[in-house]
Amino acid sequence: MIILGIDPGYGRCGYGVIDDTGPDLEMVANGVIETPPSLPFPERLLGVKASIVKLIQDHEPNYLAVEKPIHGKNVSNSVEVGAAWGAVLLAAIEQGIPILIYYPTQVKAAVASGDADKEVVQHRVKLILGLSKVPRPDDAADALAVAICGANRYMMDSLEMDYASG
Amino acid sequence: MIILGIDPGYGRCGYGVIDDTGPDLEMVANGVIETPPSLPFPERLLGVKASIVKLIQDHEPNYLAVEKPIHGKNVSNSVEVGAAWGAVLLAAIEQGIPILIYYPTQVKAAVASGDADKEVVQHRVKLILGLSKVPRPDDAADALAVAICGANRYMMDSLEMDYASG
Repeated sequence: MIILGIDPGYGRCGYGVIDDTGPDLEMVANGVIETPPSLPFPERLLGVKASIVKLIQDHEPNYLAVEKPIHGKNVSNSVEVGAAWGAVLLAAIEQGIPILIYYPTQVKAAVASGDADKEVVQHRVKLILGLSKVPRPDDAADALAVAICGANRYMMDSLEMDYASG
Repeated sequence: MIILGIDPGYGRCGYGVIDDTGPDLEMVANGVIETPPSLPFPERLLGVKASIVKLIQDHEPNYLAVEKPIHGKNVSNSVEVGAAWGAVLLAAIEQGIPILIYYPTQVKAAVASGDADKEVVQHRVKLILGLSKVPRPDDAADALAVAICGANRYMMDSLEMDYASG
């Protein structure tokens, strides 16, 4: 099973692809999608969406796992971050890829504990995937944590349930 | 010139179409796009986007004018409202329609004053468009105010400038 994990953003959007086919989780790819501040916002959004579509076409994931941005974490731009999250969801649904949505605490709990520091989460990502060092930048490591959370989906509830019922 | 105005939302998204070709602004259509809470959130988002695309195809607007949701107005769901705003922006840019983005205070100022009450704004929409009564529901009247704001675009700055520079 291939899982594409996304840490959504409009300036920097992290992505991480993992394969859970074998006994160990394997890191396939990771990185960040960046959009220049010089572009009008709708074009930045289109850039994020087009890059997610490209990742889906390149890696043919079975699931797209995405973190739900938390209101208040970035108070000043939660509407813009919400728009980027929406672009990720639309890219997946238009490409026919099932979507798993997780809160940040669920992502942290999948690799460490729900209140773990960022550094601990990233160190655990390195250990779980057997990497020689922590992936950089942070957004890429965070996206791999989201993908690991998606790979553990049979043990954890996705927010899809909440959305379906509320 | 045909302007499609949007008051973004994922549960209820208001729309209003006006024509400023003649000496008076003319109301062409208005209403709301609704998505059922029983659907998973990504599908609601897709529903909003598909409905905006349909409105663009039906009315062939020269511009899409949209209000930027304000963080804090609806504290608990600004990320979801941001996602709906993103769906509107993506629908327009993918259909090749120029986008005008306005703050709520700019929309109010276009029909009344920047701090006008909702009722005053809606009454002015009725007067400006020569309607026999205030359009219902509120979201439709609000979307017509956004469209009127767009029709006044030569006198007002759109947020496109802000986004282009920041």
